[in-house]
Amino acid sequence: MNSAASAPVGAAPTVIACQLGSAFAGILRASGLDVRVHDQQTPPWLVDPDVNVVVTQPKCWVGAPADQPAGWPGNVRFIQLGSAGIDGYPAWMFNGPVVATSRGVAAPPISEYVLAAMLTVAKEFDRLAVTGPEQWKARRLGGLYGARLGLVGYGAIGEAVATRARAFGMKVSALRRRGGVAMDGVEPADSVAGLAATCDHLVLALPLTPESRGIVSREALMAAKPGLHLINISRGGLVDQEALLEALDHGPVGFATLDVTEPEPLPAGHVFYSHPKIRLTPHISWADSDTQVRLGEKAAANIRVFASGGQPQDVVVAGAAY
Amino acid sequence: MNSAASAPVGAAPTVIACQLGSAFAGILRASGLDVRVHDQQTPPWLVDPDVNVVVTQPKCWVGAPADQPAGWPGNVRFIQLGSAGIDGYPAWMFNGPVVATSRGVAAPPISEYVLAAMLTVAKEFDRLAVTGPEQWKARRLGGLYGARLGLVGYGAIGEAVATRARAFGMKVSALRRRGGVAMDGVEPADSVAGLAATCDHLVLALPLTPESRGIVSREALMAAKPGLHLINISRGGLVDQEALLEALDHGPVGFATLDVTEPEPLPAGHVFYSHPKIRLTPHISWADSDTQVRLGEKAAANIRVFASGGQPQDVVVAGAAY
Repeated sequence: MNSAASAPVGAAPTVIACQLGSAFAGILRASGLDVRVHDQQTPPWLVDPDVNVVVTQPKCWVGAPADQPAGWPGNVRFIQLGSAGIDGYPAWMFNGPVVATSRGVAAPPISEYVLAAMLTVAKEFDRLAVTGPEQWKARRLGGLYGARLGLVGYGAIGEAVATRARAFGMKVSALRRRGGVAMDGVEPADSVAGLAATCDHLVLALPLTPESRGIVSREALMAAKPGLHLINISRGGLVDQEALLEALDHGPVGFATLDVTEPEPLPAGHVFYSHPKIRLTPHISWADSDTQVRLGEKAAANIRVFASGGQPQDVVVAGAAY
Repeated sequence: MNSAASAPVGAAPTVIACQLGSAFAGILRASGLDVRVHDQQTPPWLVDPDVNVVVTQPKCWVGAPADQPAGWPGNVRFIQLGSAGIDGYPAWMFNGPVVATSRGVAAPPISEYVLAAMLTVAKEFDRLAVTGPEQWKARRLGGLYGARLGLVGYGAIGEAVATRARAFGMKVSALRRRGGVAMDGVEPADSVAGLAATCDHLVLALPLTPESRGIVSREALMAAKPGLHLINISRGGLVDQEALLEALDHGPVGFATLDVTEPEPLPAGHVFYSHPKIRLTPHISWADSDTQVRLGEKAAANIRVFASGGQPQDVVVAGAAY
């Protein structure tokens, strides 16, 4: 652990340990918070006794013990996650502190990735360039206008994708676990299989939980609308990967754009790396030049609200799978 | 010429010659019109004496004489163009008949091409795929959210691009020749140079006329915002191509997506075919599976309106350059 740093925020003294590295600590400091950088060699659950706020992310917790270690959570009262999902942390981390996710921070870049994926497939945009006059020929292309998009999950990312897709004149259907924000111009759907059977593009925008694991099943894939384009920007475990391969090779699925797999990365030589109907990208859809800044703004706002006794945004509900 | 076909449409007998081939004639017939297919070996100005409506496109008029041939326009009273532009026809074609363009028919596919081009460049979408676990690394990407789009021209295509770009959270500025539709959420601009100096993506969406030829000048290109992405889906003659090459190699322009050039195609070995900062596509941005259907609907509607004495949509104004 580095040198002590204690900042009065609002009414309470707040000691913040940042486990996202010194660059991110700099972003928090730029917003006026005093922040201690957690030594990356020290396990994330071993925080200084005076720390009451932790900012962390899944990669810090790889190899964490299955059972809650003695001393946890110490004086930690609030944890701000640098991730929208909570599947990368041990269950015991949630015992005690209030935990808030960074839901929505990556919605703009992820929705841009999804639209880029759909346009590239529909318009063959990666195959339009010509290198000589003999290739200068018109041909018929597909498009998004009038095509149907299916969203599995309708949180911040689903909503951001729908907003953009509707501007293209796409029809949008969405399946969601429970009520939530109004789905403006989006039709409700009953099942993943129903979406797969009726949509041209199917986007997975939901967390991985015991309930959602394998939700894109062999049955849904084999009964898909011919030519279906599957896009996964959430978690690899949502998809039955063996069934996907079969549905691409011998079934109705036309193409898959996968930013996530299980495991990550896939082992060398895995067929997904070279399959002509798969575009595989390295869990990068969230990345843009402003995501860290937006995360810093959200973390700083949440820390201030918590320190002054308020309710931060996007707190994980106790007992909920997500 | 093929067998005679005479159809009463509205009040007047209307004889329609389709110069866009038999497939397009089939689309017009499906809308209830009786249509004669013009033999493609016969010059487009040599129409049967009873023909009073012609549906045509630029490629029919390649090699047309500079001077009006004897007998033109015969009994032709209305010409429906299969193009949004009028630069592919001899000037004398416009002597006499009412001429309507197909403005707007290609706005959906062209706007999709433009967004695909912007997303591909901003997110490096053509370079994200990995072929092995050693490439599975995060990196920082750009995006459209908060970036500025400049539109040179704000007709049907500019408006369609702006609608989509705004859904991505882009800021949009537009330069237009004259007043027209309200530019909802779009800031007016004064000059091409001003747009080039302030925008991240610059889209040319205007006709080629004597006034607009070379409107993207050396001066505008050399004073561009560093990294500017130029997108041309209109006509190659709008751009000083030599200056563009210099601005890409030694100046501020970052990338060019060119669906049009001058001439088309460029000669074999032209540097644009292999330039690492140019994506060159074969004048294909208008193409999608529904463009011909939309054109057929527009042509049929215009023909019916004209035959019943009304004013078709998008008639070329006499004396206007476009």
